Amino acid sequence: MSSGFQKCHTLMITGANRGLGLQMVKTLVNSSHCPTKVIATTRDKSRAKELLDLAKKHPSINVVTLDAINQDSIEQASKEVESLLGDEGLNCLINNAGINVVSTLETVEAEQMMENYETNAVSPLMITKAFLPLLRKAAKQGTGMGIHRAAVVNVSSLLGSIELNRGPGAEFKTYPYRASKAALNMLTRCVAVDLTPEGILCMAVHPGWVQTDMGGPDALLSKEESINGVLSVIGGLSEKDNGGFLDYTGKTLPW
Amino acid sequence: MSSGFQKCHTLMITGANRGLGLQMVKTLVNSSHCPTKVIATTRDKSRAKELLDLAKKHPSINVVTLDAINQDSIEQASKEVESLLGDEGLNCLINNAGINVVSTLETVEAEQMMENYETNAVSPLMITKAFLPLLRKAAKQGTGMGIHRAAVVNVSSLLGSIELNRGPGAEFKTYPYRASKAALNMLTRCVAVDLTPEGILCMAVHPGWVQTDMGGPDALLSKEESINGVLSVIGGLSEKDNGGFLDYTGKTLPW
Ligand SMILES: NC(=O)c1ccc[n+]([C@@H]2O[C@H](COP(=O)([O-])OP(=O)(O)OC[C@H]3O[C@@H](n4cnc5c(N)ncnc54)[C@H](OP(=O)(O)O)[C@@H]3O)[C@@H](O)[C@H]2O)c1
Ligand SMILES: NC(=O)c1ccc[n+]([C@@H]2O[C@H](COP(=O)([O-])OP(=O)(O)OC[C@H]3O[C@@H](n4cnc5c(N)ncnc54)[C@H](OP(=O)(O)O)[C@@H]3O)[C@@H](O)[C@H]2O)c1
Repeated sequence: MSSGFQKCHTLMITGANRGLGLQMVKTLVNSSHCPTKVIATTRDKSRAKELLDLAKKHPSINVVTLDAINQDSIEQASKEVESLLGDEGLNCLINNAGINVVSTLETVEAEQMMENYETNAVSPLMITKAFLPLLRKAAKQGTGMGIHRAAVVNVSSLLGSIELNRGPGAEFKTYPYRASKAALNMLTRCVAVDLTPEGILCMAVHPGWVQTDMGGPDALLSKEESINGVLSVIGGLSEKDNGGFLDYTGKTLPW
Repeated sequence: MSSGFQKCHTLMITGANRGLGLQMVKTLVNSSHCPTKVIATTRDKSRAKELLDLAKKHPSINVVTLDAINQDSIEQASKEVESLLGDEGLNCLINNAGINVVSTLETVEAEQMMENYETNAVSPLMITKAFLPLLRKAAKQGTGMGIHRAAVVNVSSLLGSIELNRGPGAEFKTYPYRASKAALNMLTRCVAVDLTPEGILCMAVHPGWVQTDMGGPDALLSKEESINGVLSVIGGLSEKDNGGFLDYTGKTLPW
């Protein structure tokens, strides 16, 4: 993990009860530079046993309920996190929660398109908006750009790259998911443009194809491999990455 | 207008009652290579007086009701068009209908995001699916790629380019619209990949910034200028443009 974490005091991860989100929490609390406060959100604490057990062992972890497609829940969570973080504000928001509604040209229906868009593109935007006051508070206390100050990391996907959707890259034919992640990439850029003057960075990261419930058992990477890479990329973020799209090795991906 | 129109017998345009859609119909019927049958759709014939008047003068125009966000309406329209076109099939489908829900980071709400996505990204996909049997019929009768055979043209926007959303290009801060057009670009590519084996082309076109209700009076181009360019691009489409993103001058835009 890169140096940015030495000065990243507060960090929040959505969808932290399983998969990549949970792995991020695990890797962070076992690292030498764990943020003082790690806000790990889940939409349903009753299905977050592993996360809650981990939080019992690591007091830096604060488990907060947040359903990404419920505006009331987002606002309730932002109030709860505000009372947890107070004047520190939030150094790093990781929008990780996501779904993959698998569907081809022949099978895709409007409802599936809307469902995937709501969770993967609209929710990260609404969450970013709700936590903006906390990100702004942190940004006011620093200089430069990165997670030592304030950053929004959107967990996107290579499948959201329009350019790479050709040849072998076009193998995964999941219309709702691809469209939602391309839109998320656009929103990443919109937010980056708008928040640059306030010193808040925003970028998109592709974690690789990973063995989670979503990635399936045939995926190329273990959760550990992916998240070691992802956190190293996040720790190293600076101005040059603002509005960018990087994979877990730090390589820039085309839109 | 380019040569492709000499062999494009049947063509359909959505949102043809005003703006760029209506201008396409006007320019086509006044050209020397007008398709034998131009299907001009509108969601409400009672608000399509100019189009209906034009259709009275030009028997090649067939006005069909199609509300792009209503699946029943899409399917009803596809049946009506099938009975109009019969064995010919459809050489060119132009998904032009669109809305611009203007909203900034501060004002944007989830509902606006969903509304714009439904009309600008989901609808073109659902319309393409519904008219696929007719496009396939036309594709079976030709060789090569282009509107002489079968093509889907999605009217996208420069504002859907993630790459160009920076510097002066980032001036228009319309979150719902930008995200919807970036997603439309991805869907364009998905459809292109899937339909290539059947000889059906799919591409996205940016018409320029045009004086319509959407573009406003300060826009750089008249409807005539834009549509002359757009139709020339559409007429000239071939293999190399499949899955691509061109502006009204034929220039490739980055995703
Ligand atoms: N795995 C891969 O190969 C891969 C590749 C590229 C990108 N990604 C991206 O990486 C991120 C994490 O994926 P993953 O592999 O860890 O998936 P996963 O194992 O399916 O986990 C998804 C997580 O998102 C949460 N979530 C989904 N909808 C939510 C909602 N409305 N509110 C709150 N939480 C919600 C889930 O919570 P519940 O347990 O409550 O459902 C779960 O915690 C996603 O954005 C995904 O698109 C994954
Ligand atoms: N003007 C520009 O500068 C510009 C620039 C880039 C891209 N574009 C794109 O070009 C296309 C046409 O834009 P325009 O400037 O002609 O816009 P416009 O003047 O506002 O006309 C929009 C057309 O779309 C139709 N429409 C919207 N929602 C519909 C629905 N649910 N079902 C059926 N029809 C629907 C409208 O029908 P109603 O009359 O019934 O509302 C109207 O015919 C759009 O896709 C737009 O995004 C325009």
